[in-house]
Amino acid sequence: MNGIDRIISDLCVQTESKIVLLVMDGLGDLPQDGRTPLETAQTPHLDRLASEGACGLTDPVSMGITPGSGPSHLSLFGYDPTHYRLGRGILEALGVDVNVGPDDLVARGNFATLKEGLITDRRAGRIPTEKNQELCRTLNEALSPIEGAGIRVYPGKEHRFVVQFTRPGLRDALTDADPQKEHKPRAYTEALEPEARDSAALVNAFLDRATEILQGQARANTVLLRGFARYPDIPTMRERFKLRPAAIANYPMYRGLATLVGMEVLEVGPKISDLFSTLERHYSEFDFFYVHIKKTDSSGEDGDFASKTEAITRADTFIPRITALGPDVLVVTSDHSTPCQLKAHSWHPNPFLVHAETAQPDLVSTFSERACSQGYLGRFPAVHAMALMLAHGGKLKKYGA
Amino acid sequence: MNGIDRIISDLCVQTESKIVLLVMDGLGDLPQDGRTPLETAQTPHLDRLASEGACGLTDPVSMGITPGSGPSHLSLFGYDPTHYRLGRGILEALGVDVNVGPDDLVARGNFATLKEGLITDRRAGRIPTEKNQELCRTLNEALSPIEGAGIRVYPGKEHRFVVQFTRPGLRDALTDADPQKEHKPRAYTEALEPEARDSAALVNAFLDRATEILQGQARANTVLLRGFARYPDIPTMRERFKLRPAAIANYPMYRGLATLVGMEVLEVGPKISDLFSTLERHYSEFDFFYVHIKKTDSSGEDGDFASKTEAITRADTFIPRITALGPDVLVVTSDHSTPCQLKAHSWHPNPFLVHAETAQPDLVSTFSERACSQGYLGRFPAVHAMALMLAHGGKLKKYGA
Repeated sequence: MNGIDRIISDLCVQTESKIVLLVMDGLGDLPQDGRTPLETAQTPHLDRLASEGACGLTDPVSMGITPGSGPSHLSLFGYDPTHYRLGRGILEALGVDVNVGPDDLVARGNFATLKEGLITDRRAGRIPTEKNQELCRTLNEALSPIEGAGIRVYPGKEHRFVVQFTRPGLRDALTDADPQKEHKPRAYTEALEPEARDSAALVNAFLDRATEILQGQARANTVLLRGFARYPDIPTMRERFKLRPAAIANYPMYRGLATLVGMEVLEVGPKISDLFSTLERHYSEFDFFYVHIKKTDSSGEDGDFASKTEAITRADTFIPRITALGPDVLVVTSDHSTPCQLKAHSWHPNPFLVHAETAQPDLVSTFSERACSQGYLGRFPAVHAMALMLAHGGKLKKYGA
Repeated sequence: MNGIDRIISDLCVQTESKIVLLVMDGLGDLPQDGRTPLETAQTPHLDRLASEGACGLTDPVSMGITPGSGPSHLSLFGYDPTHYRLGRGILEALGVDVNVGPDDLVARGNFATLKEGLITDRRAGRIPTEKNQELCRTLNEALSPIEGAGIRVYPGKEHRFVVQFTRPGLRDALTDADPQKEHKPRAYTEALEPEARDSAALVNAFLDRATEILQGQARANTVLLRGFARYPDIPTMRERFKLRPAAIANYPMYRGLATLVGMEVLEVGPKISDLFSTLERHYSEFDFFYVHIKKTDSSGEDGDFASKTEAITRADTFIPRITALGPDVLVVTSDHSTPCQLKAHSWHPNPFLVHAETAQPDLVSTFSERACSQGYLGRFPAVHAMALMLAHGGKLKKYGA
């Protein structure tokens, strides 16, 4: 931990107060006909929170940086995303609900086509997902432990899968086992440091074994691997902030991210209303709740302005179910912006509001990108959100005398 | 010094221009019935300064961090409070007007009650302050130098005192000499590093000697010590900023803090008007003046909204005496907020205004927490205030070509 992280950690005290962090994924946007989805949606409850609380805009990583879901969530959870870095393989594994542990090495895989010693299609003709699932079953049944390591593959969409190696001491300083271009021979991984040589040997043995098992297949008769990543060494929120944190999220990636920082991931149904039933059911058991709404992001990714607006209007109707619980601190914000115009994550800052007895009401009376730019909190790195939440909840002692 | 500190230091030039930093301690607050004390007070002069100058909000340490007076003042004086850290004993010593020097080791002390080998009351029944003063006189008369070190005790309130050991090479890596709980034996200090062993031996010899001297006392018949601290190693403002700085403050703690950064501490009477008479009297002799108003903080600590409002209204009436001197730069701000609602320091940012010929007037026309949130300076770490003051006073050269 660096200086300020260490200081904050030393100042944390456990108290009875409760914090709810509601993340509306990809919320921030650009206007169409003069208004953003958040400015277009009906948000009487969010507007009331903004009016009673303090508002601002956050940069997930740094101005101009478009973050993935990993860095943007780490930042919101109080972990400097330029210091704590998640390998691509880890995010991919979390996204297909792999339960990654400290002895695991994971990587992203492609099924590919091998003909006369050359990779002729790096995506095996984008085989259907059902075929992928069948091949993963075949591999898992045929694979036995190699060099004392457990091995398991998990299907993704089309030709994509995740492989998980389990053995103490595995390293991820490994080059991609991927020729990158077609009409080249299969590639093996190489160790980037001497301590990774055993891990490279294990991975390469798997590559050969998988190719053997798949040899009867027409298109998906070999595999490529890239983005090797170990379970990241991240102190838990309990260690850092003395919190008992719980995560309420429908999607595997966000449940996985919460696991990485030591949150207890609660069982939740697939509907948005299930998020709030789960919050109500477990409200007495934890002092920090991360609640994740996905729909705002996915409609942004689809470029669907109307659907995003509708998702925001609908999310707003659930706010009274949170406030009825009387949390000491309620923060509503986003992990990153996903403008419909871009159909992708962006670098635009997130609207942010903190509602608490101890929050300074400012001049902001609606919750939107532009309104928040006038707020008392100003524009700040999202990684400061955790100290703000703790402070408003009375969970930070005084620094110095 | 880190990167930016080094750069700023290298850019400083001595000039004839004059800077006044007026600190209204604990100024920031939360609203009651919709208005903060600063929004309620009559502040025509501060409002004019805000209207003509540039405004913003500062975080003393980092968002969410509630600072003590030490870190929050260091920050205003241009010293990163996460880097320059003051031991608890130093602040306590400054608070009772001990003149701490580079050869000194200080600690906070309690008079305590010892019965049949056990500490039965860690506060000696909270003896009256007069009794404390009498005991300190007795100790100072009876104590002779131990192991070549000068030793002196200074009374605080009730059972509290400060002890000062003077000898070159003393170290403060020492455990508290305090059993922490009652009905335990007396505790000695232990060295936390080999170089502190001599210091530990000295402290423990003092503990035995003081207990001998006090043995006839009914309640205050031994002492406990904690928070050992050496004089901090801080470069002076003259070294860092080429300033000739003076401090004008009624209270010992703030005079002491100013001493630590090398300010000359001016003689001043006890009334608020004395601050400004002193400023006028010495205005030609220095180029930087730190003027400290305490009442805004102490009324916040008392939770007395009306008294805080009145203190602000009264402070405002002295502004013309500052502007009549024609300082090139006048900054009015606070070290931290002390909301009446919390009766304590808080993490809320400080209103900040800089008034200078070279300041960019913004849209702010009144001096308040909310108005400053709309200012041209935005929200920024208070440690940047010094570079802003120097710049507005023409005391910073260009960086690079």
